[in-house]
Amino acid sequence: MDVIVAIDCMGGDHGAHVTVPAVLQYLAKDPQSAFILVGRQPAIESELARHHARPSARLRIRHAAEVVEMDEQPASALRGKKDSSMRAAIDLVKKEEAQACVSAGNTGALMAISRFVLKTLPGIDRPAIATILPTLKGHTCMLDLGANVDCTAEHLLQFAIMGSELVASLDAKAQPSVGLLNIGEEDIKGSEIVKRAGELLRASDLNFHGNVEGDDIYKGTTDVVVCDGFVGNVALKASEGLAQMLATSLREEFGRNLLTRLAGLVASPVIRHFKRRVDHRRYNGATLIGLRGIVIKSHGSADVFAFGFAIERAVEEARGGVLRHIEERMSHIQQTAA
Amino acid sequence: MDVIVAIDCMGGDHGAHVTVPAVLQYLAKDPQSAFILVGRQPAIESELARHHARPSARLRIRHAAEVVEMDEQPASALRGKKDSSMRAAIDLVKKEEAQACVSAGNTGALMAISRFVLKTLPGIDRPAIATILPTLKGHTCMLDLGANVDCTAEHLLQFAIMGSELVASLDAKAQPSVGLLNIGEEDIKGSEIVKRAGELLRASDLNFHGNVEGDDIYKGTTDVVVCDGFVGNVALKASEGLAQMLATSLREEFGRNLLTRLAGLVASPVIRHFKRRVDHRRYNGATLIGLRGIVIKSHGSADVFAFGFAIERAVEEARGGVLRHIEERMSHIQQTAA
Repeated sequence: MDVIVAIDCMGGDHGAHVTVPAVLQYLAKDPQSAFILVGRQPAIESELARHHARPSARLRIRHAAEVVEMDEQPASALRGKKDSSMRAAIDLVKKEEAQACVSAGNTGALMAISRFVLKTLPGIDRPAIATILPTLKGHTCMLDLGANVDCTAEHLLQFAIMGSELVASLDAKAQPSVGLLNIGEEDIKGSEIVKRAGELLRASDLNFHGNVEGDDIYKGTTDVVVCDGFVGNVALKASEGLAQMLATSLREEFGRNLLTRLAGLVASPVIRHFKRRVDHRRYNGATLIGLRGIVIKSHGSADVFAFGFAIERAVEEARGGVLRHIEERMSHIQQTAA
Repeated sequence: MDVIVAIDCMGGDHGAHVTVPAVLQYLAKDPQSAFILVGRQPAIESELARHHARPSARLRIRHAAEVVEMDEQPASALRGKKDSSMRAAIDLVKKEEAQACVSAGNTGALMAISRFVLKTLPGIDRPAIATILPTLKGHTCMLDLGANVDCTAEHLLQFAIMGSELVASLDAKAQPSVGLLNIGEEDIKGSEIVKRAGELLRASDLNFHGNVEGDDIYKGTTDVVVCDGFVGNVALKASEGLAQMLATSLREEFGRNLLTRLAGLVASPVIRHFKRRVDHRRYNGATLIGLRGIVIKSHGSADVFAFGFAIERAVEEARGGVLRHIEERMSHIQQTAA
């Protein structure tokens, strides 16, 4: 065993019905990983039994009686539910009994509890939410996706550093390119904060590409795309909405009549391959980055297949030593500044 | 003739090669429309000749010697090129010789010159860029898309009023629903400015739906989606980038081998129908709204088909009396406030 991941089994729309089988599938294919299933013991045990599985050295259960609701206020989850599965999973990371945790629960609560329990890394003011998105060239890392609504230029610089180190440790790229999301390529474009962030990025030792625009995200122009949480959240959700609209339209066109349904049958292997390639479930698992611990947020509606990718992300980040990379970079910056 | 539209024939990546044939096609199908072709007379005449067309009462030429370059600074275009085709087209609207104008030229220059020549409507501080986007239910009007990077809550309220009146006059809807683009549905979500805009919208007599998220744009949750120009620009361009990536992936999948190419052949009528349905060229033509005149911005890369939709938008807005609608609403608000 080289990595232990704590799983908040009760989070998300489907709870243990999704999280437990996803862990079992992951365990089977990665013999070096181990898991702590956190949540209501009876629910976890009955789910294990349903899959003919039992606890083992690589698969322990940690009982937690409470569950953070999907629509619960972060403050209420933080103060009122000290024995929630979410809190217990994060506590395991804090106590170094696990190297990472995964939750499909309420994002606001997960961020609030993680910040409270784990604290931020030295030199990082605020954690951000980072995700990997597919592009024409492969994939890109985008942050922040909604943790920070009002950001300063310094925050955007910190996001750039964290995103850069995340990509460096996951993709083994020495100097990932960083783009600053803006409404034009020229340095003079954008809000005052974004312009100032551009100055900071140009003065930094990051591999700063310059401004990028919305379409550059999916073109794969840079390895990292930096923006404030409001813009990132809207861009990501608009993309999700568009993808859904296109998928619905395509389905409707193929379902129009007998002839189109036959055409759909002939084309189905191709369409299936296409869907597989652009399947958003493969990109499930956002990183709450900037904390003294690895916390991965799965989509609340994730199915077993999607939740498996969030688990994989947790394992890879733990193995890649993301936290150490960010800490080293920040201490280097602080020494240079001092 | 019930409407005259001035066309900046030299704007855009293709100039008269696109703008002139698009006008000729539109003229043929709308016998009540008339056009003034603005730009270098020899270029326009040779393009007319190429299409065996000649000037007429419904198709006049207004010579303008200069052309605003696509990458020219707005200030230089405004101050240095008094005889540009863009400026001359806007001047025709100002002098009421035309009821609207269309340009595929540089957005920044078009906005700067329009503001300088036409001024804003009473009660409107800043013009915005509004566009129509396809949704699962039909279409929605989104603004601002990049004219205003830093907006106050009052600006967002004005955008909501303008968008609402635009939809009311184009779609004959009495009370279009208005959504405020945010990162959550709850009133407490978002930046300080957006929260304050929500308060203003709730207190207004608009049909305010509340906050909407990025995916609501394409779900068609509301008739109007309001946001600042930074967020709107990024969301729109991210959508364009995603659509391109998906189209490229689908093409690659069908081109993979002989079998997939055959499947593509069988499916091609369906795919063509699908493409036709989601073709962004049908939504070409953004409105610079809030000015004392109708100014339509076409995509710079528009082809004849796409430019035709920008022309149609100009004609429809002139016929729909959009400006009068906004003016009446603003004067009503000012009387109520006084």
